[in-house]
Amino acid sequence: MTTDELQKHHDAAVELSERAGEIALRYFRKPLDVVDKSDKTYFDPVTVADREIEAFLREQLQQRFPGYAVLGEEQGMEGDTAAPRWVIDPIDGTRAFISGMPAWGILVGLVYDGAVVLGTAHQPYMGETFSGIRGVGTWLKRGDDKTPLTSRKGIRTGDAVLYSTHPEMFIDDVEREAFMRVARLSRMTRFGGDCYSYCLLAMGQLDLVIESGLQPYDIVPLIPIIEGAGGVVSNGKGESANEGGFIVAAGDADLHASVLEIINE
Amino acid sequence: MTTDELQKHHDAAVELSERAGEIALRYFRKPLDVVDKSDKTYFDPVTVADREIEAFLREQLQQRFPGYAVLGEEQGMEGDTAAPRWVIDPIDGTRAFISGMPAWGILVGLVYDGAVVLGTAHQPYMGETFSGIRGVGTWLKRGDDKTPLTSRKGIRTGDAVLYSTHPEMFIDDVEREAFMRVARLSRMTRFGGDCYSYCLLAMGQLDLVIESGLQPYDIVPLIPIIEGAGGVVSNGKGESANEGGFIVAAGDADLHASVLEIINE
Repeated sequence: MTTDELQKHHDAAVELSERAGEIALRYFRKPLDVVDKSDKTYFDPVTVADREIEAFLREQLQQRFPGYAVLGEEQGMEGDTAAPRWVIDPIDGTRAFISGMPAWGILVGLVYDGAVVLGTAHQPYMGETFSGIRGVGTWLKRGDDKTPLTSRKGIRTGDAVLYSTHPEMFIDDVEREAFMRVARLSRMTRFGGDCYSYCLLAMGQLDLVIESGLQPYDIVPLIPIIEGAGGVVSNGKGESANEGGFIVAAGDADLHASVLEIINE
Repeated sequence: MTTDELQKHHDAAVELSERAGEIALRYFRKPLDVVDKSDKTYFDPVTVADREIEAFLREQLQQRFPGYAVLGEEQGMEGDTAAPRWVIDPIDGTRAFISGMPAWGILVGLVYDGAVVLGTAHQPYMGETFSGIRGVGTWLKRGDDKTPLTSRKGIRTGDAVLYSTHPEMFIDDVEREAFMRVARLSRMTRFGGDCYSYCLLAMGQLDLVIESGLQPYDIVPLIPIIEGAGGVVSNGKGESANEGGFIVAAGDADLHASVLEIINE
């Protein structure tokens, strides 16, 4: 895809996620019907807003990009698996959303020839759109300001600020203990970030995000935002993050390598 | 103090905290000098913004309210301990602040004749001011909108949304285990809220906040916001929250009573 074409796809993703944000704000901090679709061990709320936003994004993307596949949280995969693929999470961080916290976002990413080429994360309550294009850069747009972002470099593990959504999101003791080894070595650990943590990493405000149990739509749209700012993201083995699972993101390559070593000790 | 006088004090607190917010925004998401003033076991950052805001608030409050005492995070207590007392936390949630998360706020409260009569919590990045006047009510002001707030009522422990700033903020195993008993019974637990959690409780977005190790200035300004919305806040024994320590806030009195029982089992 040419740079011009990438830019055109990027601008469509930004425009549509910002329009979707208007839907989200009609439901944010309003009484909601929450349906627990999960088994009893994990609370997984699905909101009316979630469904309405995904339907809106699917319709618009299929209209504007005929032949492209769409993978979304609510309705799964539609279209040719070999085609370019839009990957959307209508509301990443539904638990933040239903408790009034603004650490949620609308995520849209594009996979082209197997590579994640662009991604956007829109936070409508704060009026922020983070976006990245592979090989080009990452930006934060707020109102009329559009600022290029760079992650923080040259931070050692002992000086790193580590974020994760919840201390109990790790799927077994091995993962939990791996996370805790990094947490104990870090300068500071904070919980509760959801997708917003990766955006703040791209902004150079924090250095590490370690999470688990992620679905592809939870992380794919964030990959170009992290990488476009100079960060590195992979699974726990240092392989592609595209499939989700256990995810390690860092502001720079050296810190990422050190943390992978600690995790795989 | 008459209602008119209360209103005048309230309006001054709102105005000054919003002016202080302009100072905070000059430092938010900018590179900061962080000084660790604590011992090695706990990271307690103090920012330039913290000091500048407290100096500004002290100067303004002492000018406008001569004879009143001021208690603040940075410079401690100044003035007559028997006088009315302004209680200020220039940046509550410094760790959110230094990692770019907006879950911090500027807190100003007033203690008069031993009772906390009003409090404000201003979040400048989102342009929000929460405020409460004892016996009158609680409001959220954002731009030209000012909305009265009420906490969520009639929620049982099993349906409650519980917030706390960090799972490791509890000072010993007894406290930690008490918190975990409530967390296991709740519908959902989230971390990372700082002062903003209490504001969302007043807004009816979440039901419980349990925290520990709080200083008076961390909680005093929030008490009228919680109570003005119909919530209840106390220490772990059900006594006044004015001195900080282990704090339990709930959206309604029945839920508060049930949770205190679970905590003191």
